[in-house]
Amino acid sequence: MTPTLSLRQVEAVAPDAAPDLTDMANAVRMLAVAGVEAAKSGHPGMPMGMADVATVLFTRVMRLDPSRPDWPDRDRFVLSAGHGSMLQYALHHLLGYADMPIEELKRFRQLGAKAAGHPEYGHALGIETTTGPLGQGITTAVGMALAERHLNARFGDALVDHRTYVIAGDGCLMEGISQEAIDLAGQLRLARLVVLWDDNGISIDGPTRLSTRTDQAARFAASDWAVETVDAYDHEAIEAALTRAQASDRPTLIACRSVIGYGAPTKAGTCGVHGAPLGAEEAQGAAQALGWDSPPFTVPDDIRDAWRAVAEAGRGHREAWERRLAAHPARADFQRVMAAEPEVAEALAAYRQELVATRPKMATRKASQLVLGVVNATTDLTVGGSADLTHSNLTQTKGMEVLDAGDYAGRYIHYGIREHAMAAVMNGLAVHGGIIPYGGTFLVFSDYARGAIRLSALMGVRVIHVLTHDSIGLGEDGPTHQPVEHLAMLRATPNLHVFRPADAVETAECWELALTDTATPSALCLSRQDLPTLRRDADFNRSAAGAYILRETAGPRDATLLATGSEVALAVEAAERLATEGVAVAVVSMPCWDLFARQPAANRALVLGAAPRIGVEAAVRFGWDRWLGDQGAFIGMEGFGASGPAADLYRHFGITVDAIMAAVRARVAHA
Amino acid sequence: MTPTLSLRQVEAVAPDAAPDLTDMANAVRMLAVAGVEAAKSGHPGMPMGMADVATVLFTRVMRLDPSRPDWPDRDRFVLSAGHGSMLQYALHHLLGYADMPIEELKRFRQLGAKAAGHPEYGHALGIETTTGPLGQGITTAVGMALAERHLNARFGDALVDHRTYVIAGDGCLMEGISQEAIDLAGQLRLARLVVLWDDNGISIDGPTRLSTRTDQAARFAASDWAVETVDAYDHEAIEAALTRAQASDRPTLIACRSVIGYGAPTKAGTCGVHGAPLGAEEAQGAAQALGWDSPPFTVPDDIRDAWRAVAEAGRGHREAWERRLAAHPARADFQRVMAAEPEVAEALAAYRQELVATRPKMATRKASQLVLGVVNATTDLTVGGSADLTHSNLTQTKGMEVLDAGDYAGRYIHYGIREHAMAAVMNGLAVHGGIIPYGGTFLVFSDYARGAIRLSALMGVRVIHVLTHDSIGLGEDGPTHQPVEHLAMLRATPNLHVFRPADAVETAECWELALTDTATPSALCLSRQDLPTLRRDADFNRSAAGAYILRETAGPRDATLLATGSEVALAVEAAERLATEGVAVAVVSMPCWDLFARQPAANRALVLGAAPRIGVEAAVRFGWDRWLGDQGAFIGMEGFGASGPAADLYRHFGITVDAIMAAVRARVAHA
Repeated sequence: MTPTLSLRQVEAVAPDAAPDLTDMANAVRMLAVAGVEAAKSGHPGMPMGMADVATVLFTRVMRLDPSRPDWPDRDRFVLSAGHGSMLQYALHHLLGYADMPIEELKRFRQLGAKAAGHPEYGHALGIETTTGPLGQGITTAVGMALAERHLNARFGDALVDHRTYVIAGDGCLMEGISQEAIDLAGQLRLARLVVLWDDNGISIDGPTRLSTRTDQAARFAASDWAVETVDAYDHEAIEAALTRAQASDRPTLIACRSVIGYGAPTKAGTCGVHGAPLGAEEAQGAAQALGWDSPPFTVPDDIRDAWRAVAEAGRGHREAWERRLAAHPARADFQRVMAAEPEVAEALAAYRQELVATRPKMATRKASQLVLGVVNATTDLTVGGSADLTHSNLTQTKGMEVLDAGDYAGRYIHYGIREHAMAAVMNGLAVHGGIIPYGGTFLVFSDYARGAIRLSALMGVRVIHVLTHDSIGLGEDGPTHQPVEHLAMLRATPNLHVFRPADAVETAECWELALTDTATPSALCLSRQDLPTLRRDADFNRSAAGAYILRETAGPRDATLLATGSEVALAVEAAERLATEGVAVAVVSMPCWDLFARQPAANRALVLGAAPRIGVEAAVRFGWDRWLGDQGAFIGMEGFGASGPAADLYRHFGITVDAIMAAVRARVAHA
Repeated sequence: MTPTLSLRQVEAVAPDAAPDLTDMANAVRMLAVAGVEAAKSGHPGMPMGMADVATVLFTRVMRLDPSRPDWPDRDRFVLSAGHGSMLQYALHHLLGYADMPIEELKRFRQLGAKAAGHPEYGHALGIETTTGPLGQGITTAVGMALAERHLNARFGDALVDHRTYVIAGDGCLMEGISQEAIDLAGQLRLARLVVLWDDNGISIDGPTRLSTRTDQAARFAASDWAVETVDAYDHEAIEAALTRAQASDRPTLIACRSVIGYGAPTKAGTCGVHGAPLGAEEAQGAAQALGWDSPPFTVPDDIRDAWRAVAEAGRGHREAWERRLAAHPARADFQRVMAAEPEVAEALAAYRQELVATRPKMATRKASQLVLGVVNATTDLTVGGSADLTHSNLTQTKGMEVLDAGDYAGRYIHYGIREHAMAAVMNGLAVHGGIIPYGGTFLVFSDYARGAIRLSALMGVRVIHVLTHDSIGLGEDGPTHQPVEHLAMLRATPNLHVFRPADAVETAECWELALTDTATPSALCLSRQDLPTLRRDADFNRSAAGAYILRETAGPRDATLLATGSEVALAVEAAERLATEGVAVAVVSMPCWDLFARQPAANRALVLGAAPRIGVEAAVRFGWDRWLGDQGAFIGMEGFGASGPAADLYRHFGITVDAIMAAVRARVAHA
């Protein structure tokens, strides 16, 4: 299947014919080659191999309006094999996306270029989600396709009637997360999801037979997908498969038998063309083999016109949709949902007053469920779920119907035991728009979801992770289930709110912050064990400052205790008992470090105080020194936990009121 | 399939019959019930459902000697569904493992009990690997089965001839890592791996149909597994399937159609029996239904004897093997390999001298490959690999043959694009014994492997992660590929060496430390970009102290620069240029924080010095304050990276010699 000059035999005899799909695909292909050559860096193999498939998809099937890349009812395209980014940039250029002129393609992979190394959400127009880490795109696409069905169930075909297309490579299908995606998509019968697999038999190390013998068609079929196989250069076959996919009642895999680096005279079909420029000679040879005689970055006008005509057709689809929207009785409601601004402040304020009045003793996971009861009754934007720990995470609230193939209007997703897919699907729900997703698992299993949590932070999307059982306080399940380093791990991640509320009031405050920050995902770390209500005031959302003085001293402080979550109550009790000894100890609750770090330095200094500081958290010290200062001490974990009842563990690891008191006394005596 | 009194009808008419497999299984079942009842915590459903399968496996098939749980040629058993730990503790008790008397079962889940919440490697005898986080067990078992084939290829059937058995639940099969495991096991034709799937149709949230419709038999078959389906209470069928599995040339899945909580009169077959004690009444009802009339924690002598006979048979197998070993010409070599003490010190010392003499400029990933060339030629214990980034991670060395189904004696594994499985398989290779595994991926994709990396740290096994492309220095691939929080994330993990060597000499030192610490896994974080050789001495492994003074000042220090990896060269250059201005700056290289943290406080104080300190690392500050002190400053990343050439990125993010000099000047002026 090595390409030769014969690739363009037909056109060669009729050079003046109107541009056909092959011409249009070659424009994509050669722009990709040129971009990688200019950058001296990048991945030409995938764009060259899949240019025809992408061209058929974008010209014959997809509905996009490049002049309005955010049109809500557009089809979604996800380049799960994100290293092939030049494929997408070339398409965007040819379709006339405003931010992708030829100059940007020439600046591929340069600092600040729209044509970044991998497609980045929010960086260039029309990039639906950030890809590059393999398997994320296909799984995020499941979320997009699910969002479409959910909103369709609410608003009908007139307003919500689009499809989600994915190009995925062997890498995406080898990553475990893809299995979670496939299984979920089959379960949810996401018939509007189509995955085009770049089946080129090559991965970076060589032929895929080095590392896999899986029959992918059988694998997808096992999860109830429709499966098609096509020649990646047979335009009619590709279109026919896509047409059948549109009519399917199940998600569809289209295995596209392709040649990596299609057109490259000596490197096509080898791993050498995956991730390195072709080199001038090979690039020229490819042009020749493909019958492409324009210089790099140049596209003949007729081919350019043919691509622009596709864009025009897309504009027509968008305008027709806008007419439907304008006349639709649910117009205002649809626009409200797509704006996704939850109006929960009033209800949560009232609820916090109730909490201060009743001062319940409960686990913060339970407090979270009660807050969610208020939230889910107040706004219809939230879609919750859990990775098979519903009754532990307490993520489902009264009247919340299950969202599944039988009822896409439901608002609760059984994600199964698939933490990674849950996080990536939530990314898809969020970037699709119209939904605020939250999902639960144990804090320790945020490990499994790291890849997708990081992407939500990088993209800056509002996804809320409900991470319960947040310390040794979970007890008997032991060290495999007890997070000790996870707070640090999450806090180290840029643009991620890590909340660890101390009581029910703070839980409500943190939820409000998570729901209203549209550009930052949140991790709510919640206790399994009961905690007293410490707060006596609720008018002001004190968690918004990240840390605040929960208990101040009458006179000068002898020491300041800094604590989070379940350990704040220990700090308060220690402070109260020390007060009877005449030792003046303030207690600072720190539910969210990153918000505190953004406070003015003077405010931070006032909160932290000049007295010796002692941090208390049932986790490792890593990261705490920032707040403790040179004179600081820390009471927490020094290693992994153990299996046993929670109270025994706190004693065993020395995280007790007595230990705090002793540490304060030592500090005060020393000062 | 709800069990009733009729379960024991046959036995009821012949009460004096010798104990059969049902009796033996019921002993397991009722011990598990009793343990959970006593703990008031735990998971009775799985042990009750799978007791018969486990009993057939342990009595009819497996070769274990409870008196010598570490006998090298024993069969391996992995309870991938680790929450069912009481199943294994009950088996161990009945088989007479020395550390599992009835008192331990009574202390199930109490602090310090051998019968911990989940099976913990190194905590109780005969636990081959720590399980609980789902999907880890089945994947670690792939590593064990591969280790067996590898050592068999080297030492033959007389010494290495065992099998690996896994009990996995629906959760294990839903986790994405299981797909990576299945695909790899099929690819590697691990015919001695048998997975017994507890196919009970129930997960925590309810019926598995809530979240999956995957045909597991078809899924495994798609990856070239043999598949069997049996009734989980039909002993003959189970044994027959296991016998066929032993003859298969492929790994085998045995789907065991089971009833969760088998025997519980009202709760069997429901999710209510998964993770909570039965309660006294239901437990009594189960005993009645099963015809079990002994009190809790009591096992009739005849049943106990039957189990002890199994143990005796196992002792026979072990003794026969020991006789074979004693007479075997390769005995000493086999023992040397199983001891797994690599004798690389001399070769590495010589190599370091060579480096100091030649002072090459090279990326630390390249330096790592050269070190590995020395290591792999000096010891035969190492088995390397990469998650499809061999030529980026530089993990393969000359003459290293591929380890696959065609040549199990090879020493290089193409793990495919499966970072999580790679890490878990390496755990399996390590706990099996006789192998020191290392494997490569990009540092940023350690995210995908977190679940298994954490387990290696918790178990304390020697697994070496080669994590290249360790900062924005990788350049154009952009923020999805540029780690900024990963050093912090890994450093926060207890019992994990995080090495970030500054040059080729430190790389060799860190490799030596990683290879020789048998109780701690290592992450070697290596640069893509070239770095100068900074070290001029090589006699002493200075990295062993974690941090050391690379450049000292003649007189008192004006400032101390603390740096790691690729930024140490920047610090040295800044110090040298500042010296010409009369500013005395020491440079401390910190290749391994956790080793430095273990140094005596006085040593640490001497290294860090009293002068103002400035940290330099192309990563987030999180964790650095511990070393910087109140007067400290930090030059690094404040958020995610960007796509562009590396040099542009360093300038853009202000990680430059000039920036370091400016920071020092500001500190010195201030002091």
